[in-house]
Amino acid sequence: MSTFGSSFRVTTYGESHCRSVGCIVDGVPPGLPLTEEDIQPQLSRRRPGQSALTTPRNEKDRVQIHSGTEFGYTLGTPVAMMVLNEDQRPHDYSEMDLYPRPSHADFTYLQKYGIKASSGGGRSSARETIGRVAAAGIAEKYLRMTHNTSFTAFVSSVGPIHLPLTQQPDSPEYMEFLSNLTREKVDSFLPVRCPDAEYNEKMGQLIAEYRDKKDSIGGTVTCVIRNVPVGLGEPCFDKLEAKLAHAMMSIPATKGFEIGSGFLGTEIPGSIHNDKFIPHPTDPTSLATATNYSGGIQGGISNGQNIYFKVAFKSPATIGVAQDTTKYNGQPGTLEAKGRHDPCVVPRAVPIVEAMAALVIMDALCLQQSREAARSALPRVAQPMGLKTKEVMDGSERTEEAEKKGQGVVFGDE
Amino acid sequence: MSTFGSSFRVTTYGESHCRSVGCIVDGVPPGLPLTEEDIQPQLSRRRPGQSALTTPRNEKDRVQIHSGTEFGYTLGTPVAMMVLNEDQRPHDYSEMDLYPRPSHADFTYLQKYGIKASSGGGRSSARETIGRVAAAGIAEKYLRMTHNTSFTAFVSSVGPIHLPLTQQPDSPEYMEFLSNLTREKVDSFLPVRCPDAEYNEKMGQLIAEYRDKKDSIGGTVTCVIRNVPVGLGEPCFDKLEAKLAHAMMSIPATKGFEIGSGFLGTEIPGSIHNDKFIPHPTDPTSLATATNYSGGIQGGISNGQNIYFKVAFKSPATIGVAQDTTKYNGQPGTLEAKGRHDPCVVPRAVPIVEAMAALVIMDALCLQQSREAARSALPRVAQPMGLKTKEVMDGSERTEEAEKKGQGVVFGDE
Amino acid sequence: MSTFGSSFRVTTYGESHCRSVGCIVDGVPPGLPLTEEDIQPQLSRRRPGQSALTTPRNEKDRVQIHSGTEFGYTLGTPVAMMVLNEDQRPHDYSEMDLYPRPSHADFTYLQKYGIKASSGGGRSSARETIGRVAAAGIAEKYLRMTHNTSFTAFVSSVGPIHLPLTQQPDSPEYMEFLSNLTREKVDSFLPVRCPDAEYNEKMGQLIAEYRDKKDSIGGTVTCVIRNVPVGLGEPCFDKLEAKLAHAMMSIPATKGFEIGSGFLGTEIPGSIHNDKFIPHPTDPTSLATATNYSGGIQGGISNGQNIYFKVAFKSPATIGVAQDTTKYNGQPGTLEAKGRHDPCVVPRAVPIVEAMAALVIMDALCLQQSREAARSALPRVAQPMGLKTKEVMDGSERTEEAEKKGQGVVFGDE
Amino acid sequence: MSTFGSSFRVTTYGESHCRSVGCIVDGVPPGLPLTEEDIQPQLSRRRPGQSALTTPRNEKDRVQIHSGTEFGYTLGTPVAMMVLNEDQRPHDYSEMDLYPRPSHADFTYLQKYGIKASSGGGRSSARETIGRVAAAGIAEKYLRMTHNTSFTAFVSSVGPIHLPLTQQPDSPEYMEFLSNLTREKVDSFLPVRCPDAEYNEKMGQLIAEYRDKKDSIGGTVTCVIRNVPVGLGEPCFDKLEAKLAHAMMSIPATKGFEIGSGFLGTEIPGSIHNDKFIPHPTDPTSLATATNYSGGIQGGISNGQNIYFKVAFKSPATIGVAQDTTKYNGQPGTLEAKGRHDPCVVPRAVPIVEAMAALVIMDALCLQQSREAARSALPRVAQPMGLKTKEVMDGSERTEEAEKKGQGVVFGDE
Repeated sequence: MSTFGSSFRVTTYGESHCRSVGCIVDGVPPGLPLTEEDIQPQLSRRRPGQSALTTPRNEKDRVQIHSGTEFGYTLGTPVAMMVLNEDQRPHDYSEMDLYPRPSHADFTYLQKYGIKASSGGGRSSARETIGRVAAAGIAEKYLRMTHNTSFTAFVSSVGPIHLPLTQQPDSPEYMEFLSNLTREKVDSFLPVRCPDAEYNEKMGQLIAEYRDKKDSIGGTVTCVIRNVPVGLGEPCFDKLEAKLAHAMMSIPATKGFEIGSGFLGTEIPGSIHNDKFIPHPTDPTSLATATNYSGGIQGGISNGQNIYFKVAFKSPATIGVAQDTTKYNGQPGTLEAKGRHDPCVVPRAVPIVEAMAALVIMDALCLQQSREAARSALPRVAQPMGLKTKEVMDGSERTEEAEKKGQGVVFGDE
Repeated sequence: MSTFGSSFRVTTYGESHCRSVGCIVDGVPPGLPLTEEDIQPQLSRRRPGQSALTTPRNEKDRVQIHSGTEFGYTLGTPVAMMVLNEDQRPHDYSEMDLYPRPSHADFTYLQKYGIKASSGGGRSSARETIGRVAAAGIAEKYLRMTHNTSFTAFVSSVGPIHLPLTQQPDSPEYMEFLSNLTREKVDSFLPVRCPDAEYNEKMGQLIAEYRDKKDSIGGTVTCVIRNVPVGLGEPCFDKLEAKLAHAMMSIPATKGFEIGSGFLGTEIPGSIHNDKFIPHPTDPTSLATATNYSGGIQGGISNGQNIYFKVAFKSPATIGVAQDTTKYNGQPGTLEAKGRHDPCVVPRAVPIVEAMAALVIMDALCLQQSREAARSALPRVAQPMGLKTKEVMDGSERTEEAEKKGQGVVFGDE
Repeated sequence: MSTFGSSFRVTTYGESHCRSVGCIVDGVPPGLPLTEEDIQPQLSRRRPGQSALTTPRNEKDRVQIHSGTEFGYTLGTPVAMMVLNEDQRPHDYSEMDLYPRPSHADFTYLQKYGIKASSGGGRSSARETIGRVAAAGIAEKYLRMTHNTSFTAFVSSVGPIHLPLTQQPDSPEYMEFLSNLTREKVDSFLPVRCPDAEYNEKMGQLIAEYRDKKDSIGGTVTCVIRNVPVGLGEPCFDKLEAKLAHAMMSIPATKGFEIGSGFLGTEIPGSIHNDKFIPHPTDPTSLATATNYSGGIQGGISNGQNIYFKVAFKSPATIGVAQDTTKYNGQPGTLEAKGRHDPCVVPRAVPIVEAMAALVIMDALCLQQSREAARSALPRVAQPMGLKTKEVMDGSERTEEAEKKGQGVVFGDE
Repeated sequence: MSTFGSSFRVTTYGESHCRSVGCIVDGVPPGLPLTEEDIQPQLSRRRPGQSALTTPRNEKDRVQIHSGTEFGYTLGTPVAMMVLNEDQRPHDYSEMDLYPRPSHADFTYLQKYGIKASSGGGRSSARETIGRVAAAGIAEKYLRMTHNTSFTAFVSSVGPIHLPLTQQPDSPEYMEFLSNLTREKVDSFLPVRCPDAEYNEKMGQLIAEYRDKKDSIGGTVTCVIRNVPVGLGEPCFDKLEAKLAHAMMSIPATKGFEIGSGFLGTEIPGSIHNDKFIPHPTDPTSLATATNYSGGIQGGISNGQNIYFKVAFKSPATIGVAQDTTKYNGQPGTLEAKGRHDPCVVPRAVPIVEAMAALVIMDALCLQQSREAARSALPRVAQPMGLKTKEVMDGSERTEEAEKKGQGVVFGDE
C-alpha cells in the first residue's frame, strides 16, 4: 500500500492533478534540527525541467512542513509535508483516452480499482515520488548528522552505453571511484548525471537521438551508500538487500536490481568471489574485507563496507512514435502521444534512488538500535573472538561475577 | 524480521541444530482440503542429497501439521508446521571457529546480535527456508484449486553458461517455452534442473568441475507464474514486482532480481519495448498484450500475462579451497572448510524460488479480493472503455450495453 | 504510533499550533461517492464552541480533501485530508510553563521525546482527533451505503449522575432504547447530548456547577452500532471487542471501556447471562439471540446483534482551581490555569467515539471480506446445522460430486 | 489475527485437540539467559486442575523450546515454543453438537469461517492462551533482569463480592497494598487468589455455591505493574493504556477494562483527580506524583508510577443448568452441558492477565529504546526544567557550540 517502513514509517499520498502530493513521516527522532531548507534540495534535483533532455514542465515543487516541528526542531511526532500541485484540474478527455497506453498503468489501474484518475497516471505517475523524496530528506539529515552516512547515485548506463567501471564488479578502481563520489560531482555532469566526461557526453547524445525520434530509451542508476553502521538488516525476510530491492523496485519504471557483484558475480568462482577478512584499517576491534563483491551486506546484514547496487529503468512508455494498439473497447487503432515527454528517466531517477535507499537504511537503523539497546541492558555473554571453545560455552570457565549473578557464563568483555 | 506477508502471513523459526524448524501460517482460507501430503513434495525437492552434485546430507525432512486443520480441511485458524532436526546437537568447536568464514554471515550475525549459533550459520542457513517452502504449499494448493495458477522455476544459467532463450527477452520462442514448462519437465533434467538436454549437461559438467576443485560457482534461476489474476499488487510501495524482488532477495545467497526484460530491457527503445494491446484471445471483455517485455506487471499490478523473472545466486561461500583470511581476533590465518559442500546452489534453489513467488501472489490475491469485495458492494461508477468523457463521468450518458451487463460502464445511481 | 488499522488504514498528524492537522486514509474502497460534504458534519459536531458548556474557541475546522478522489468518487488511492490551524503561532511562554501540568501529558511527553510542543499539549491535545473524525467520515459513508450500519453515541453519565437505563444491562427497555436512537435525537439534547430530557438537564446543571467552581468533572459515553455484519473480528488477538477497546482507550482522557453487560455483567450468573439463541426474526437461515448481554460479540466475532459499549472519560485536567504542585526543576509552587476550559469533555467526545468505532468496524469488514472472498472460491465443506456427525465429517457420506473433484468431503450445500 | 506486538512480536497457534499449541516469539533480545525452567512456572499456574474450584483436567502442559536458544542463551532469532496436546483426537459428536452453545463462539466461528473445530471451542478455547503465557515468560525474564519490573495480578471480585480496597481508587492503603503485593502472597490464597483471608474465603464459598448449582459466576482481576520505565507508550493510537486494553480484551471471556481510577474516577472532580507532582523520592532529576488516580499513565505514556488496572471476566458460558435455546437448524431444544466445568475463571485468569501485561510493556520498551537511542545520537535540545523561557527557545541564549554547529539552541545538558 502507501506506507513504507516499520519504525521510521512513511505514508505518501497524491495524484498528478489533485490538490497536493505529500507524506506523513512517523517515527522521526525527536530533537533533529529540521526546516524546509533540509528537504527542498533533493526535491529540486528530482523535478523535471532541469535541462533540454528532461520534460520542460517546471513544477516548482516547494515543500511545506505542516507538523511535527517547532522552533526548527522535530518533536518526535509525525512530520506532514506537502507540495501543492500547480495544475489541479482533472484532465480534459480526448481521443487518447480511448486507449490504454501500452506499458502504462492505465489498463491495470482500471482493472484493479474499477476506476482510474483521469490522466497523468494517477498514483503511477512519477509525481508520486515527491512524498518519498521529502521523507528521505529527514532520514538523510539524521543519518548524516549521527553517522556521516551518505547516499550518492549516478547514471551508470543509457541504452547500451555503460560506464565501463560499473561492469567490473569489485575492480579496485571501481571501489575507489565509489568511495570518492559526491553529489556535487555527479551534478557537475548534467544533464545525464554520469560522472565521467566522455560517457556523460555519449549518453547525452544517445538520449538526444531518441528524443529527436520521439522514441525513448532506458538505462541504469548505480548508488553507493557510505558509512553504514555494521549490523543493519533483519533476517530472515527483511534482509537489508531484500528491503533495498523492495524499495528500488517500488520506484516507477524499474525492471531490475542487483547488489554488489550482482548478475555478473554469478560467474565468478567462490574462491575469488568470497570477501576475505582483513584487520579493520581504523577500528582495531573490528574487521574489514579485502574485496567487496558482497556489496557491503553478508547474510542480509550490513558489514560496514560500502553498500552499492544497480537499478534498471525501462525506456519510458510515453512516446510520440505512433503505436498500433487496441482501445479499451477492443477496437484496433493507432496511438500517438502529444507534447514533449521524457526520452530517458535515469537522470531524474538519481535523487529518487538515493531517497529510497535512505528510507531503508534509516528504518533498519531504528530497528537495530532497538535491539542494541535491549541487549546492552543484559550482561555480556561469552563470545568467540579467539575464545569460543566448547569448554567456555559449556561454562567450565565461569567468571566469579557470573557465578554470583547466577547467570551462567558471563564475561566482562569479549 | 521473521514474518512475511500481511493478509496471508508466514512466520518462520529455526536454526540448523535446534529441535525443529517450521512456521506458523496465519490468514489461511478456511475450508481448503489440506494434509501433509500437500506440503511434502516441495520440501523433498528442496532437500539436499538428491544427486551427486548437491550435498550428501539426507535430512529426510518430514513435515508435521500441528494445528489449523481437522478432518483434512483448514479451519481458517493458524496452521503450524514443523520439521524435526535430525541433528539437534550444537556444534563441536574446532580451529575453524576462530574464523569468521569469508562471505558468510558469521561476522555480521555476531556483530548484530552479540552472539551467534554455534554452527551451520543459524538463521542464515538454507535450512531456514524449510518453513517458507512448507507455508507455500498451502498457498500453492489454494491458488491451483481456485485459479489454476502455477509456479515453475528452472536453472537458467550456471557460471557463464546461459540457456540462450533466457537471454532473449520476449522472443516468441522464449515466451512459448515459458508457457509450456512444467515441474515434471524441469525435474526430468536432474541434477541441474535446466530444462534443455544440451545445456543441462554442460551446466552439470561445469558444476562437477568446480566440485572437483573444491571451489564453487553461481548461477541464475528463472521462474514463470501462469494464470495470475489481473489486478494483483498494491501501489505505491507494494507493487507486485517490488514484493517479488523483496521475496527473492530474502532467499540466502541471492544477488539480483529482474522482472520481464530486466536489465537487457533497458537497452530496448520504448517503441519496441512497449507491450501493445490486443484483444484478449479468450476473454472478449478484456485485453491482452502482443508482447510481454513487462513480464506480466504494469504499474506494479498484474495484467494477466505470464509473470516471469530471474534471480541471481552467488557462488556458495563454503569452499574447500584454502583461503587466506583473518581470525575474529585480528590475526591472519588460512581457512580450509572440511567435508563436502554444495558447489552450486541453483538446482536446490528452484523450489525455494517457487515458494517465495507463491507467498507473494497469495498475499496479493487476498488483498485484492478484499478490495474487490468492498468495491462490488458499491454501485458501479461510469468508466472509460471508449466512453470516458467528462459528461459521462458526470453520469449524464448511460449506455445500453452497460444497462444490459449491469457491469462495465454503468451509471445509474449510487 | 500514528497509524490505526491494517486494511483500512488511517495515519494522522498535527499538533495544536502547527500549520494543519489531518490524515491520510489508505485502503479506501474505490468508487465511493465522496466529497467534503460527507466529512464536515462530524467535524462540526466535534469542534468546541457549540454551547456555553464547552470551550468558547471557534476553530471553524473546514476540511479539505487533497487527494484520492476525482469527479466526486474515490479512486482507491490514499485520501489525504486536512484542516488548517487558525492559530499557527507557537505559544508565548509564561510562568505556567515552569510547571508540568498535573495529569497532563507535559511531563511524560518531555520524558519520552526529550522535547515537547510549546503548548496545547501537542499531540495529546484533543485537536489531534480531527484526523480521526475526518477519516471515519469515509468509513461511515461506506458502511451506511453498503450495510446500513449506523454509529450512535450519547452521554450516559456526568459525574455521579447516570442515565438509569444504561445501568441495567440488557433490560428490554434499554435494548429498545439503543435500537431506536439517532444522532438527530442525541443532538436535540444539547448541550450535554444525553437523550433524556430530565437527565440532560441534571447533567447540564452539574457541568455548570463545576464550570463555575473552575473545576471539572468526568463522565461516560455509550455507543451503539447497528446493522453490523456477522463475522467481524479477528481472533485471537484482534477480537472485535479488543480492537474497540484499543480504539476507545486511544482517545485522550479515557479511563475505561466495557462491552455489553460490562463490569456489572460479572455479577450475573451464567444461567441468566448466557444469550440463548432464537430463530432470526428476518433471516430464516440464521439465528439471533434472545438477550444481548454479550453486546453483539461472541468469541471476539460480531454475531449480528447490536454492539454497544461504554467509555469512561476522566475529569479534564486543565482547571482554574489553584493546584499545589512541583515545577520541572523540583521546586514547589502553585499552578492556576488561566482562561476558560472545558469543564467536562463527554458532550464533545460523542462524535469521536462514533468515529473510532467506525474505523474499527470498517477495518474488520475489509479483513473479513477478504476471507469470505477466499473461502467462496473453494468448494463448500460439509458443516453442522443438524448434519454434523462424526460419520459425515469422516467422509463416509461423500457426495458424488466431491468424489469426482477428488476434494474429499464436499457437499453441494450445507 | 494471531500476532501481537510490533518489535517484540508473538504469534500463537493451536486448538484444543490438534497436535500442540504454542508460539513463535520474534524480536527477542539476544544474550538473555533462557531455559524451559523460566517458562514453565506461569504455565503451571495457568493450567486447570489446581484445586476443587477449577476444572479437574490435568493437562500437564510441559513447554518445549524448539529454537532461538543455544547453551542457555537466546540468539536473537525467533524462539518457538510448544506444549503438546495430550488429547489430540477430534471430538466425538453427540446431541450437543446440534446446538450452538449460548454465549460461546460456536455460532460466530461457523459464520465467520464457514467451518469450525469439532469441539473445545477451537481457537476460542482458553487453551489458546498457553502460547501467550509462554511468550510472556521471555518478556518477564528480560524486564525483571534489566528493570526489576514485576507483574502481579489477583482476584479483586467474584460476583458481587469485591475486595473493598479495590473500589477505593487511590486510597493510600490501596496504593500501599499494590506496592507490596507478590505472586507468592497471591498464591498463598488459593484457590481464589484474592490476597485477603476474609474475602478469599467468601469468594471461594460463592464459587462453590455456583459450582454446586451447575451454574457459573464472573469476577474481576486487578493487576499492578511495578518499576515501569518512564516514557513507554506510543501516541496517538498506541497509547499505553490502549495497548493494555487491547491486550486484556483479547483474553477469552473479558468484558471490561479500566485503568487507574477507571469508571469510578469519572465521578471525582479534576481538582482532586489531578495527580499533583512532587519531587521524586529517589531520583533528584525527576518527579513523582502525590496521588496516582492516573494509574501510572499520562497522555498515553508511562510516568514511572505503578500501573494498575482491572479486567472484567464474565460468568463462564459452559454450565450444567439446562438452557432453552435453538439448534443450528432453527429448531428449539434444551441444552445441558455434561461433565464438570469451571464455575468461575478469574483464579486461572491471573497469570494470563500478567502475561498479556508483560507482552505490552516489553513491546513498548523496545519501541521507546529505539527512540531513545535515535535521540541520544543527536545533540541535546534546550528544554524546560526551569529553563524554558521564550528567550531560550528563540535562541537568544545560544551556546557557542551550537553556533558552531549551526544547529540553533543546543545545550550540553538540560
